[in-house]
Amino acid sequence: MSDIIFVHNREMGKAFIERLLGKKPIFTCVIGITETAKIPGISAAGKNPELTYYTPPADVELLMLGKCKCIQGVPVTPEGIPTPALITRAALKLADIPTVIVSGGLKVKPQVPFVDLGGSPGRDIRSGRAVDYVEDVLEKAMMLGENLAKTVDYLVVGESVPGGTTTALAVLLAMGINAEGKVSSSMPSNPHRLKIETAKTGLKASGVEFGALANNPMKAVSCVGDPMMPAFAGMVMGAADRIPVLMAGGTQMSTILAIVKALKPEVLDNVAIGTTRWIILDKEADLPGLVQQIADVPVLAINLNFSSSKFNGLRAYEAGAVKEGVGAGGACIAAILKSGGAVSTDKIFIEVEKAYSSLCSDF
Amino acid sequence: MSDIIFVHNREMGKAFIERLLGKKPIFTCVIGITETAKIPGISAAGKNPELTYYTPPADVELLMLGKCKCIQGVPVTPEGIPTPALITRAALKLADIPTVIVSGGLKVKPQVPFVDLGGSPGRDIRSGRAVDYVEDVLEKAMMLGENLAKTVDYLVVGESVPGGTTTALAVLLAMGINAEGKVSSSMPSNPHRLKIETAKTGLKASGVEFGALANNPMKAVSCVGDPMMPAFAGMVMGAADRIPVLMAGGTQMSTILAIVKALKPEVLDNVAIGTTRWIILDKEADLPGLVQQIADVPVLAINLNFSSSKFNGLRAYEAGAVKEGVGAGGACIAAILKSGGAVSTDKIFIEVEKAYSSLCSDF
Repeated sequence: MSDIIFVHNREMGKAFIERLLGKKPIFTCVIGITETAKIPGISAAGKNPELTYYTPPADVELLMLGKCKCIQGVPVTPEGIPTPALITRAALKLADIPTVIVSGGLKVKPQVPFVDLGGSPGRDIRSGRAVDYVEDVLEKAMMLGENLAKTVDYLVVGESVPGGTTTALAVLLAMGINAEGKVSSSMPSNPHRLKIETAKTGLKASGVEFGALANNPMKAVSCVGDPMMPAFAGMVMGAADRIPVLMAGGTQMSTILAIVKALKPEVLDNVAIGTTRWIILDKEADLPGLVQQIADVPVLAINLNFSSSKFNGLRAYEAGAVKEGVGAGGACIAAILKSGGAVSTDKIFIEVEKAYSSLCSDF
Repeated sequence: MSDIIFVHNREMGKAFIERLLGKKPIFTCVIGITETAKIPGISAAGKNPELTYYTPPADVELLMLGKCKCIQGVPVTPEGIPTPALITRAALKLADIPTVIVSGGLKVKPQVPFVDLGGSPGRDIRSGRAVDYVEDVLEKAMMLGENLAKTVDYLVVGESVPGGTTTALAVLLAMGINAEGKVSSSMPSNPHRLKIETAKTGLKASGVEFGALANNPMKAVSCVGDPMMPAFAGMVMGAADRIPVLMAGGTQMSTILAIVKALKPEVLDNVAIGTTRWIILDKEADLPGLVQQIADVPVLAINLNFSSSKFNGLRAYEAGAVKEGVGAGGACIAAILKSGGAVSTDKIFIEVEKAYSSLCSDF
């Protein structure tokens, strides 16, 4: 288990991991889109802003099929660096982990089975009215989480929503969390000023002051969030009553944590965050600093390192590109735990290199 | 286990049941609609033909929520006899069985989470081009079945598609199975002549002769089937490689069996049909006679009896109304097996009466 780094709340993290060891997980990936991603410079989760609508469906096609259907190749940043879904796919495949895709709200549907929660695509948060049907989606997601919790020993939830760290920042601010300069980015250089400006424009448009919605997270999401949020939080709330839930993601997980804490704090002792080493190394973000403002849950990271890769597109992760997404870190942790260590970061790395060489063109 | 009747292939049925006893199931319900249901006199799965579009979503709302959202009350026949989803709900609730809803193709979406397989509503089979995207839906359903099979010990699949016995008949004829006068009906008096005429009109319109599509079931479905079929068959094919599958339904299950046999016969030794006593008692239909023409799988029936009910709407089942649907028979069998007999037909009956008295108005 030396492949897992205990980042925050070390003892609780170790206890959490012990409960999961050798047990049967299900991996779910919540996808959604927000027009916020089309603001130039906000997101690198797509070759260009228009393509960000295709990134979430393409990501989950890759998870389920080993290749994308709605786009050629795989989602890449404008620099050509590939989606972390390559990592997630490798982990799920090696450990034979069942996968269920969940839509929070999309423009382009994936060509794989997915759970529809009745959500719709998110608007640009500068409108101040970003997401519709948040309560409905939350309720349906709880139902889904509750039912999935009856099938397996623990739940892993990942996400793919381009622009998602900006919406995460805005919701954190609405809920009174000191988050400026702390959310991560898929770009090596984090556009904090643009994100803060975007978030504040959204808050102003919705008439919400810093902290005004600390106890009303669904209002915060409807004003300045994205459609992944109620779906993700609802699944955690529905499942964590019964089984442990590993929230697989980077700084966006702090927003989910804040939502869950406001709506159902009693499940938090059954929750941990699983992320990547790249998120932890990121000096321009602060996941532990966000988490400790919200709730005392463990933060774990997968000790995956691409510095010895043959490919520029993968070595770029070591320079701070992409970092996390599509539940990559959590999926790796689950793969190692499910297999009792038979799946390792070495094996995942080899599998990712194989997939990269068959699906991506290096530069 | 005296609550389970071994109808066909008794020894195999007993062995099948033994493999399931005490194990963990998931119940899935595949819903879809076909405009065939709007032919006057074809279906009783709705108060009137227009309402049949609402029956499948209302049925699964009842399963997940204990009440319907898209209609008032619960789906009823024109005589006011309630949906068998009341039985399914009672069984799933008593045995705490997780449930996943799957859409094959709908006009009205349910207000609960459901898996979208990319299917669309079915046309009147008299057009000869009844269902679109059959191959796509089949493939996605296989993926879903495969993933669900990694979470639990066995899969139960039910369905709700008004007009479904007529489309079942038509596909059976296209595949060369002697099915005239053998499919069941939700009405006490089975409109066999109307069904046969409808099926034959569809076959003629598509230029398909009796038996011409014995080896091409997806073509048969696209010509004269309904959108539940590729979804249901695909899930069976995807899951039965790995775990036992109980196909929960009446005579429509013979059509699914024929599809699975044509496309993936090697999984059939992992498959059984679970239905109700009312289907077996039906003198105007012949489920065993259909099954034995296709494949040697066990047929089991739940020995549920409503003759002592306080309510006319439930006693009507004993007079041949409704009989089966929404996986009622298979859900009861799974509830008994999961609970090791702690859930019985008596307990299910009491629970159904309770639900009837709170949701239905007796007549």
